[in-house]
Amino acid sequence: MQIYSAPLRDMRFVLHELFADDQFDASAAFAEFTPDLYDAVLEEAGRMAKDVLLPLNASGDLEGCRLENGVVRTPAGFPEAYRQFRDGGWAALASAPEWGGQGLPETLNKLVEEMICSANLSFGLYPGLTHGATTAIEGHGSEDLKRAYLPRMVSGEWSGTMCLTEPHCGTDLGLLRTRAVPQDDGSYRVSGSKIFISAGDHDLTDNVIHLVLARLPDAPAGVKGISLFLVPKFLPRDDGSFGPHNGVSVAGIEHKMGLKASATCQMQFDDATGWIVGEPNKGLAAMFTMMNTERVSVGIQGLGVGEIAYQSAVAYARERQQGRALTGPKRPDLPADPIIVHPDVRRMLMTMRVYAEGCRAVGQWTSRALDAEKHAPDPELRARATDFIALMTPVVKALFTDLASEAANLCVQTYGGHGYIREHGVEQFVRDARITQIYEGTNGVQALDLVGRKMPANMGRAMRPFFHAVSNLCEEMAGSTDKTLAAQTAALHQAFGALQLTTATIARKAMKNADEAGAAATDYLKMLGLVAIGYTFLRAARIATDRLAEGSADAAFYRAKLATAAFFFDRILPQATGSFLVIKAGSRSTMALAEELF
Amino acid sequence: MQIYSAPLRDMRFVLHELFADDQFDASAAFAEFTPDLYDAVLEEAGRMAKDVLLPLNASGDLEGCRLENGVVRTPAGFPEAYRQFRDGGWAALASAPEWGGQGLPETLNKLVEEMICSANLSFGLYPGLTHGATTAIEGHGSEDLKRAYLPRMVSGEWSGTMCLTEPHCGTDLGLLRTRAVPQDDGSYRVSGSKIFISAGDHDLTDNVIHLVLARLPDAPAGVKGISLFLVPKFLPRDDGSFGPHNGVSVAGIEHKMGLKASATCQMQFDDATGWIVGEPNKGLAAMFTMMNTERVSVGIQGLGVGEIAYQSAVAYARERQQGRALTGPKRPDLPADPIIVHPDVRRMLMTMRVYAEGCRAVGQWTSRALDAEKHAPDPELRARATDFIALMTPVVKALFTDLASEAANLCVQTYGGHGYIREHGVEQFVRDARITQIYEGTNGVQALDLVGRKMPANMGRAMRPFFHAVSNLCEEMAGSTDKTLAAQTAALHQAFGALQLTTATIARKAMKNADEAGAAATDYLKMLGLVAIGYTFLRAARIATDRLAEGSADAAFYRAKLATAAFFFDRILPQATGSFLVIKAGSRSTMALAEELF
Repeated sequence: MQIYSAPLRDMRFVLHELFADDQFDASAAFAEFTPDLYDAVLEEAGRMAKDVLLPLNASGDLEGCRLENGVVRTPAGFPEAYRQFRDGGWAALASAPEWGGQGLPETLNKLVEEMICSANLSFGLYPGLTHGATTAIEGHGSEDLKRAYLPRMVSGEWSGTMCLTEPHCGTDLGLLRTRAVPQDDGSYRVSGSKIFISAGDHDLTDNVIHLVLARLPDAPAGVKGISLFLVPKFLPRDDGSFGPHNGVSVAGIEHKMGLKASATCQMQFDDATGWIVGEPNKGLAAMFTMMNTERVSVGIQGLGVGEIAYQSAVAYARERQQGRALTGPKRPDLPADPIIVHPDVRRMLMTMRVYAEGCRAVGQWTSRALDAEKHAPDPELRARATDFIALMTPVVKALFTDLASEAANLCVQTYGGHGYIREHGVEQFVRDARITQIYEGTNGVQALDLVGRKMPANMGRAMRPFFHAVSNLCEEMAGSTDKTLAAQTAALHQAFGALQLTTATIARKAMKNADEAGAAATDYLKMLGLVAIGYTFLRAARIATDRLAEGSADAAFYRAKLATAAFFFDRILPQATGSFLVIKAGSRSTMALAEELF
Repeated sequence: MQIYSAPLRDMRFVLHELFADDQFDASAAFAEFTPDLYDAVLEEAGRMAKDVLLPLNASGDLEGCRLENGVVRTPAGFPEAYRQFRDGGWAALASAPEWGGQGLPETLNKLVEEMICSANLSFGLYPGLTHGATTAIEGHGSEDLKRAYLPRMVSGEWSGTMCLTEPHCGTDLGLLRTRAVPQDDGSYRVSGSKIFISAGDHDLTDNVIHLVLARLPDAPAGVKGISLFLVPKFLPRDDGSFGPHNGVSVAGIEHKMGLKASATCQMQFDDATGWIVGEPNKGLAAMFTMMNTERVSVGIQGLGVGEIAYQSAVAYARERQQGRALTGPKRPDLPADPIIVHPDVRRMLMTMRVYAEGCRAVGQWTSRALDAEKHAPDPELRARATDFIALMTPVVKALFTDLASEAANLCVQTYGGHGYIREHGVEQFVRDARITQIYEGTNGVQALDLVGRKMPANMGRAMRPFFHAVSNLCEEMAGSTDKTLAAQTAALHQAFGALQLTTATIARKAMKNADEAGAAATDYLKMLGLVAIGYTFLRAARIATDRLAEGSADAAFYRAKLATAAFFFDRILPQATGSFLVIKAGSRSTMALAEELF
């Protein structure tokens, strides 16, 4: 059973309450929008997700995409759902008004993204990639390109892709071979083969705008010789009609473990006409604008799948009756108790719940920085936001998606044998979530980015906004008279201390041996991620405690929040200790085995 | 790439060296067999796995099983492969010579099972379930039933099933509704619906012998009213020919996440003729004979998938070239280094390797007890072996399969995007391994069995052989002059101390509140499992150190063993500390959230 209703109450909590007084305040830039408007958008998005996208999730997985006469067909219902999505204005939510966007903040937009990905991850990729592509064009394209492409892409009339990967080159883009030859009219002829191109072709939009990494004829070797090109499927004429099909074709579509309703294409470029985006040989910077946007979004994808996995597991745990509670029958009127009475089932449900709420809160924290980076009046604040985003991008991407896969698997486990068969639709969550740990840079690459790049850059500057926030909160709350809050503050403070110590240790060891950073990376990202979640839960618990003391009419929500926070501090945060010990052991045993002895 | 060669050297190590002096010695009963014979069997089995079963693994997954005119067809090649398997005598390896078996020890048989499951898990289920069914008939059936069925089942001419689950009843067998009505001739008429019946029907054998749990008309309610019945698909006549088709039909086959070449059937029994196995209303005991055999085998299935995942990942990590080593290019002759140079890739490979070697060793330890229980001359040793098996059955089942799923996922992660597409065949490992955490009792049920049943029974008697073994080893090695061995001994001793403390804490708390055991169960099983693996690695490291000191000609193997042991103690065992802290937190936060607030 794929069960989903947008978690509106928790979304409103992270949007309005959790960070009301925090470091990344850009609210002045959005003064024209009221909280009521945000809530109305969330409600409407929740309805769209549930009524339009969710019903196509299982059927889309079963049917998949197919290549027919060189054109990709999405599963039944997808074109119509996309039309509703676009007509509802969902494609343009957070885009700049200059290009037809609604200019709403990322804090709101990322919650809507979460809903879309809960209801139908495959569907979410089509507008998601368009959003990444528009970001790159906006940031690096010429005015002509912007005017020619952005309005139609922002509205969702045309879609976008990112064409990076080639058969022999994924992570290591320096190896790429696609060529771009300049023409006298300022355009380029692009030729080469790309694989794993999400939304590379489909029947949802009239045109597909490819952003393609390629080499100029005189480009230096490696990543310093990569440029970015805009290559449309159809060449648009000035009058709005299309010219001939460009030299872009679909060589095949991939058969994947999951995400089957998202077309993953092998694209062939044969002297295709394109235009350069940004400076020659500076394509990697332009690409990273797009990639970083996508990485945060992939984290949100994970959160989305984790949330529907949680809700689907709860529904089944309430309904399925097996055995009796260890402490005696809870529902003697039934032949057996619902399995939600069993501690091990609750362990699974609470774990999924903590992951969803924790990631939603950390995602919101990051989204606030995304808004502050663009819109805060204070340049120092903008710079701090940039640093924080740099740090959190790999964490959001890898942590959220690792936890999403774990949650999806816990959902299947809650269903038992019934989770393993297609009928109930939950094994799809596992298959769909699995790709989020891989694409837009594997989670190992994210961890390396964190430890090898973000951590040492500028003497650790990117870490400061994060460290300061956690440190300040621990200090503020150290004197809490609430016993539970005091204990949770102590627990966070201890984990944070271990994280600081580990950070220093890795930095020191890595100066002598770079493998020390590499071997520690994945565990370090997990530690930092757990501290980040702990930070948000401690804030949440403080707010909930206050609201309950004030006699809030919404006591049930705040009591639930306290219960969830307690579970996090009891049962999830201690895993950071394991990671701490693992990192402490160093890289030696990881690197010791001679290659031929594997 | 599904890459597999039987890990013969490590198999010989666990079989001949690792436990040469241990507590469960039943070698006297197998004096007729020489080590050379065992090695020859392993080699031959490895060839069969690689040449006959592996080539059908990916194709079987793609094709799946289908129901045609009421009969299940297995994928192309399966009937012929099964014929070769049966003709080679592999079905009868460890069965009693009385019924045509070869009487080889379980220590050897479980290694062969591992190979079969590495090469083709779906295939492995057909003979695997037959083996479980023969065990139940041997242990509980009448002499007539044994004579009529065992010879043909042991030879593999007929296959067997376990028909337990019904739509509304999986774990909670007390709810089952299938009925058996006694007839004047001593037979029964069995009627009811069963689901999730592995190998319920297929085209590999002439007959399928179902062992069916059902209720007699006067049976008491719940699990005390369950009896076991043998119900053949075709009723055999005394002359060896078949009578008419029995009232057994296939109502459908399940569409599953994986294991697609194994037919999972919905079976319908309509006044089917059957015979009781064991005493009326004592079916659960007979069923548990079969179930416990199967549970250990499911653990071995996990190990098998974990091993092929490891080998397939290593092959790719050697071949795939991306990026340069952090410490400088290792293969400047190539456009990029093979990814095996990257610490995070090595982390994944070493983790998979440790899991495979660790589980193989713990599996062998358990298999020695299986042989000792049956064949040791000393009744006290037999009793200790029974205790040890009782303890280790849930651990082998749950630990091995949890680690297998993790290993399969690490393999996919090593492949990156290439692992997510069907072409390379490794995403199949994830889908196939996933069921092993569920069937024959979910891993949560295993953990409860360990903590709620095995731990407290007879004042903790089942724990003693395990605790004594670990304690003795730590004591023996405490004075080691080898610095590494001394440190590893200390690490194991510390984890063992935490396990003992946790055992006592859970026992004490659970007396007041049964939920304390339930909430701790999964983490406790993991802790105990890690200590068990640690025990085997410490033994292995001691042997390897000795052999290297003696100047063994096989130094490469022993050096690799030391490297693998070091990785385990550095990076895997510390996770037990996380589990220790989680259990310490108790059950409160797991149980606190009111059901309606989920």
